[in-house]
Amino acid sequence: MVKVGDEVSNKQVIFRDYVIGSPKESDMYLTTGTIKLKVPEGSNEVLVKNLYLSCDPTMQFDMRKAMGPSRNLYYTPGSPICGYGVAKVLDSGHPELKAGDLVWGITGWEEYSLITKTTDTLIKIQHTDVPLSYYTGILGMPGMTAYAGFYEVGTPKKGEYVFVSAASGAVGQLIGQFAKLEGCYVVGSAGSKEKVDLLKNKLGFDEAFNYKEEHDLNAALKRYFPEGIDVYFEHVGGKMLDAVLLNMRHHGRIAVCGMISQYNLDEPEGIKNLLHIGFKWIQMKGYTHRNYYHLYPKFLDLVLPYIREKKMVYVEDIVEGLESGPAALVGLFSGRNFGKQVVVVARE
Amino acid sequence: MVKVGDEVSNKQVIFRDYVIGSPKESDMYLTTGTIKLKVPEGSNEVLVKNLYLSCDPTMQFDMRKAMGPSRNLYYTPGSPICGYGVAKVLDSGHPELKAGDLVWGITGWEEYSLITKTTDTLIKIQHTDVPLSYYTGILGMPGMTAYAGFYEVGTPKKGEYVFVSAASGAVGQLIGQFAKLEGCYVVGSAGSKEKVDLLKNKLGFDEAFNYKEEHDLNAALKRYFPEGIDVYFEHVGGKMLDAVLLNMRHHGRIAVCGMISQYNLDEPEGIKNLLHIGFKWIQMKGYTHRNYYHLYPKFLDLVLPYIREKKMVYVEDIVEGLESGPAALVGLFSGRNFGKQVVVVARE
Repeated sequence: MVKVGDEVSNKQVIFRDYVIGSPKESDMYLTTGTIKLKVPEGSNEVLVKNLYLSCDPTMQFDMRKAMGPSRNLYYTPGSPICGYGVAKVLDSGHPELKAGDLVWGITGWEEYSLITKTTDTLIKIQHTDVPLSYYTGILGMPGMTAYAGFYEVGTPKKGEYVFVSAASGAVGQLIGQFAKLEGCYVVGSAGSKEKVDLLKNKLGFDEAFNYKEEHDLNAALKRYFPEGIDVYFEHVGGKMLDAVLLNMRHHGRIAVCGMISQYNLDEPEGIKNLLHIGFKWIQMKGYTHRNYYHLYPKFLDLVLPYIREKKMVYVEDIVEGLESGPAALVGLFSGRNFGKQVVVVARE
Repeated sequence: MVKVGDEVSNKQVIFRDYVIGSPKESDMYLTTGTIKLKVPEGSNEVLVKNLYLSCDPTMQFDMRKAMGPSRNLYYTPGSPICGYGVAKVLDSGHPELKAGDLVWGITGWEEYSLITKTTDTLIKIQHTDVPLSYYTGILGMPGMTAYAGFYEVGTPKKGEYVFVSAASGAVGQLIGQFAKLEGCYVVGSAGSKEKVDLLKNKLGFDEAFNYKEEHDLNAALKRYFPEGIDVYFEHVGGKMLDAVLLNMRHHGRIAVCGMISQYNLDEPEGIKNLLHIGFKWIQMKGYTHRNYYHLYPKFLDLVLPYIREKKMVYVEDIVEGLESGPAALVGLFSGRNFGKQVVVVARE
């Protein structure tokens, strides 16, 4: 058992250098350093033991240079990867956090992290009767993303026709469940038979299809939405977006969370059906969880009871150990994950 | 002087047949029929003498088959073209309109029209101290479009950076003037030196440029918007939209009124920079004046004083006589018009 003030070994996943295009496992490497388990005297920093690390699609942008001020993580070659995670406070100079507290927020891909920027990046975990790893997912950033996307951007109403792409992913599976709980008809797309089965049999989607098996996405959407789509939750972009635009109803809404199919192309695919935005008075809106953190307490009030009453479920793809991290992260971009991708560093 | 009950000759512009692609002058022809200047006994129809006819970009859609329920005009081969216009009531079965009233709304391209669908399509003109032709433009459908686009969709605030394409057109010139009156910085694009001069010297735009002389639209926008664009009023689509997306600021808004550069291509150009919608939380929203008619009185309260006090001006491109109509309408699609295109049938 380590204690405050100990100097201990610290396994780390190091960011090798900025990448162009798709990140590969070799853009990261494992090393072991040492760390003193104590925050500097007089600082408001926090020293944590990392428990669960989150693999998020946006991390690829942090691995590129100069994505500009919309990014909240700043990667330095030779330093650990950083991202969302769940951690236990070992020592704290922060007035609102003390040793033994559990937190979620931005931490490093290593066993122990000294977190120097603590403002707005660490949230104290108040409810521990649910799996702690959920704070990388349904109760963390992806959960807030789904909540904001559903209730603040897409705003589907009872009886409306809702389509979700990347529907078994960290955000998509929650959007679909919110849609069912609100009385919508909801269809999801995903990239394998197993994911489609998950959507239909475990997550309660009305229908689901494997986009890789549809040579005509427009025809697929017409099959599932003979009366058109009211709200589309966009996670993939490209050909799917073009087909969706053809099938949107008047006054339809497209909530743009991401376009993962486009991030690693040399040049994004051209979208040809934007005329429908004008023809059908469609609203297409990009959003980020970061603009909605003031709603976090309201979000917990909604979602915690759903989890406890098993009205919402959450599918995680958990890999063990920091050394599994790089492959898990890179796997996101080819859809290798099955549900929310989490890396366990330690369980307590 | 004609009187009610007379049977008179009636010059008409006839719609030959549905078109594919860009309408040509030969898709219309002139003929002269006869009409009895009297509404059928017991009907609520209205018989009008047409004064000014409006040439609007959307009319090309009515010339194609099956544009679906977003269209409000239904063209029949062998019958007159129809569209917005200003007319004088000669006989009326409508309870709220009487002989001598002036109206604006949907009428036929002919000297006299029996208007059978009068609900929501004819608005009585209450203010005649301004040019009557304005009710095809600044005080009619384009005016309502600009008003709704500016105040309800794009919602630029004082000090924001506003860009308007097709800025000397029927809607663009009004958007730019609203923007100046609200304290925005506003730049317009247009397709000739004369139009650029008009924007800068008569309509009060801060800057304007001829898109045909810019081989790199992205560079042109960076020149005029070194800090980026807050609100874009979209009338053209295609390459301009792609360049705008690169230059939008965080939380930017794109109000989509139309995409005239794309309507007559065999296939629309692919838009590659939609990723920025997600990266910069941009809202892109299509709209139509038709969803905002409840605001018409509020709109008049704002705009009529501006016109009377010469705080707003309106540039019209007026051609004389029904026989000039087809060329004027077709000219819209190559930007031949200089300001709002109007056809005079009669002045009173």
